Amino acid sequence: MPRQHSPLIRASASSPHRHERALIPAGMVTILPRTAKRVRGMEQGLVDTLGRWGYEEIIPPTFEYLDVLSAGLEPHVIEKCYTMSDRATGRILMLRPDVTAQIARIVGMGMLGPQLPLRLSYRTTVFRYEPDHAGREREIFQVGAELIGVDDMGMDSEIIALAVDCLKELGLSEFKISLGHVGFFRALLAQSGLSPEGQKQAEHAAARKDLPRLEELLTGERIEKAKRRVILEAPELYGREDVLKRGRALAGRNRSARIAVDRLEQIYRLLEAGGLKSHLLLDLGEFRGFDYYDGVVFDVFAAGLGNELGGGGRYNHLIGRFGRDLPSTGFAFDIDRLFRALEGGTEKGSGAKVDVLVCAAAARSAQAFQVARTLRQQGLRVVQRIAPDGDAPSAKLLEAEGRRLGAPTLVSLNGRGTTETHAVVTFPPVESTRTIPKNGNPKRLTRRVSLEELPVLLKPNR
Amino acid sequence: MPRQHSPLIRASASSPHRHERALIPAGMVTILPRTAKRVRGMEQGLVDTLGRWGYEEIIPPTFEYLDVLSAGLEPHVIEKCYTMSDRATGRILMLRPDVTAQIARIVGMGMLGPQLPLRLSYRTTVFRYEPDHAGREREIFQVGAELIGVDDMGMDSEIIALAVDCLKELGLSEFKISLGHVGFFRALLAQSGLSPEGQKQAEHAAARKDLPRLEELLTGERIEKAKRRVILEAPELYGREDVLKRGRALAGRNRSARIAVDRLEQIYRLLEAGGLKSHLLLDLGEFRGFDYYDGVVFDVFAAGLGNELGGGGRYNHLIGRFGRDLPSTGFAFDIDRLFRALEGGTEKGSGAKVDVLVCAAAARSAQAFQVARTLRQQGLRVVQRIAPDGDAPSAKLLEAEGRRLGAPTLVSLNGRGTTETHAVVTFPPVESTRTIPKNGNPKRLTRRVSLEELPVLLKPNR
Repeated sequence: MPRQHSPLIRASASSPHRHERALIPAGMVTILPRTAKRVRGMEQGLVDTLGRWGYEEIIPPTFEYLDVLSAGLEPHVIEKCYTMSDRATGRILMLRPDVTAQIARIVGMGMLGPQLPLRLSYRTTVFRYEPDHAGREREIFQVGAELIGVDDMGMDSEIIALAVDCLKELGLSEFKISLGHVGFFRALLAQSGLSPEGQKQAEHAAARKDLPRLEELLTGERIEKAKRRVILEAPELYGREDVLKRGRALAGRNRSARIAVDRLEQIYRLLEAGGLKSHLLLDLGEFRGFDYYDGVVFDVFAAGLGNELGGGGRYNHLIGRFGRDLPSTGFAFDIDRLFRALEGGTEKGSGAKVDVLVCAAAARSAQAFQVARTLRQQGLRVVQRIAPDGDAPSAKLLEAEGRRLGAPTLVSLNGRGTTETHAVVTFPPVESTRTIPKNGNPKRLTRRVSLEELPVLLKPNR
Repeated sequence: MPRQHSPLIRASASSPHRHERALIPAGMVTILPRTAKRVRGMEQGLVDTLGRWGYEEIIPPTFEYLDVLSAGLEPHVIEKCYTMSDRATGRILMLRPDVTAQIARIVGMGMLGPQLPLRLSYRTTVFRYEPDHAGREREIFQVGAELIGVDDMGMDSEIIALAVDCLKELGLSEFKISLGHVGFFRALLAQSGLSPEGQKQAEHAAARKDLPRLEELLTGERIEKAKRRVILEAPELYGREDVLKRGRALAGRNRSARIAVDRLEQIYRLLEAGGLKSHLLLDLGEFRGFDYYDGVVFDVFAAGLGNELGGGGRYNHLIGRFGRDLPSTGFAFDIDRLFRALEGGTEKGSGAKVDVLVCAAAARSAQAFQVARTLRQQGLRVVQRIAPDGDAPSAKLLEAEGRRLGAPTLVSLNGRGTTETHAVVTFPPVESTRTIPKNGNPKRLTRRVSLEELPVLLKPNR
């Protein structure tokens, strides 16, 4: 099967990367400037939104002891970990495969004090040994949030509303939050008479929406027909509000299943009141694939993308594995997939890499430093080029260097027409009076300008 | 010897960290919110400054193949690497101990195209198995820059001026750049008659300013007295401009040594012209401890700190080891040490964690969402708290929650005095009319405010 590349790789020129892939480990990627800028912009944008909701960033270590952290990890995640042995202790170190487990450890150990609730965020990479054909990289960029210490519908609705706000602030409009409650299906399974092992396998089959497998499990354990029908219908219960009504019908007199549907409805109503209804879908077969979830869970999908952009939910018993039982909820976004979802959209704030190229011979370097400094203070990106010989490069060379840098404005402190107090400036073409001559290059203006006037003339209009 | 903790650790409350240290690998650290905010602020500030000089960020992978990357690493660095074996290939993977080598690999492999010079930056962590008593963490936060493709004094001065600007923009004022040229001392050693192995050992001794060891090496190989004296004087040649004169005298007719001093002087003059003289020291015994440097090198020191905050220099033959010989220069800052250098200073933009706490019972959640959203759009950090029961928490509970969050303003959509269209707002104490009553709490104003007026009243004055 041909390997599918992540968009972070595809976004860079493909041929140099093809060369790189023989020399760096599969699944590792070098993110080149144009993409790096967008990745960092997305990370910062998300952390900023989280900050406006009162979520504070923490930075957990890149690796930990496996024996400590694995208390908070699913077996199938531990299997995918990169590990090494610690020289000093001989214990096994693991590169983090998941930040939620680390935060559970940090909070469970009491490092953040007794005050609750805690609102935390993080931006980081996690490492998972995904199969080579899975179309995912093995160093995964994530931004996430955790809301720790209180279990109520206000908190559940906060974390989902926060996820919606994060996506909107990034500029994404076409996305859906698929909202479920793991307690519903678990309650149906528990009541069905399935063995504990069978219940677990059934959950995993339902999470994959693998109905034939689910049916096989149920018939294998000779579950009675009426219960089987109910269980087989549940994973397909997704859509709008009618899901709640049908869920209640399926729950019948199963009290736990009814409680789950009630909680889901309360949260749905709160989010509806918050004006988020258009982004919500209900899905009573929603699972997330992590056993530690035990309440409301959700996945985020964007139009036209098969994989979820992120997701999360309530995990009330994870932190307890590290010594302090605290209910929690949270989510994580996959930056790689968000990047893909935004790929078609407009790039905010891309544009020119450099605004101005300032060039001078060594003899006028003092003025070059001064001019570049002043322009940077105005918020411009300025490359300064001190030519080592007596003369600055010719106008032609300067033009070529500026084009390479993407700098629309060129300032030469030497060259023809300059004096002690003047520079020669080549201005970018003015949009409104732009005329494209035969050679295809827009017309540019070259003027002798006094050094005093220069900052005023080049001031960005913001 | 008692372990010295990094300031990133010391900045967090010490007792929970002491507990953590038994459970996470030595040298790994969890950075808690207050410190994380400053670390991220420093990283972003540095990358922004680099961006204004035209340096574009790239993001290299966290680990690579040892056999590939080690071509760009010193033997003593390779010895300190964290390694693991790759499941698929059996090859050894190494967590990056140094980003310069990675960038050399990326550029040497042609991933960034043929255009030169390249201006690149990075922010990341590197991993080194430092001795437990070295007072350094093993996951080291770095921000750095590389200027690749041209070898001239304009480029050398650019990279040093850039380092100075980075530090100034961070708010550091008391620092020195100690500027040297590895070619000077190497030329003296080459001419002395020392064996190649002796020259290498002598360089390392000089880098540590270990004069007794240096003398031992010279007498051990019976180097003649006059040459010995010159070599022993060189590592102590630091200070102001007179260093250049004395360096020339020591160089005598050693052409390579004179060329090194000349280049150093040219760069010094360029930086002097750029107004940076007050931050410069000359040091003809400056080495940086990496064999790959082969031109002008520099270290950055802050008042009162023994260790350098960072440093860099010219490495013209590193990238060639990866297939494309390109002259380069660059530097890296150690975020941990910068943090320490700034510790005494003022914290920019710290202040309250949260600006406003908005509280409502579920029945008024729609308004709570709306109010919180409007306030966040004004740039305020807002925690919204939907109480699950019919009533919002009492004024006393609200006050306690606000104090815990550090939120000076409280908005209750329920509670006494509220209606459909009004909220009760507790305003922060006004500085100018502040009177501290006997109970020690500054006087606060509680008012009934219409929801329409609310955003106007709480608008931050910026």
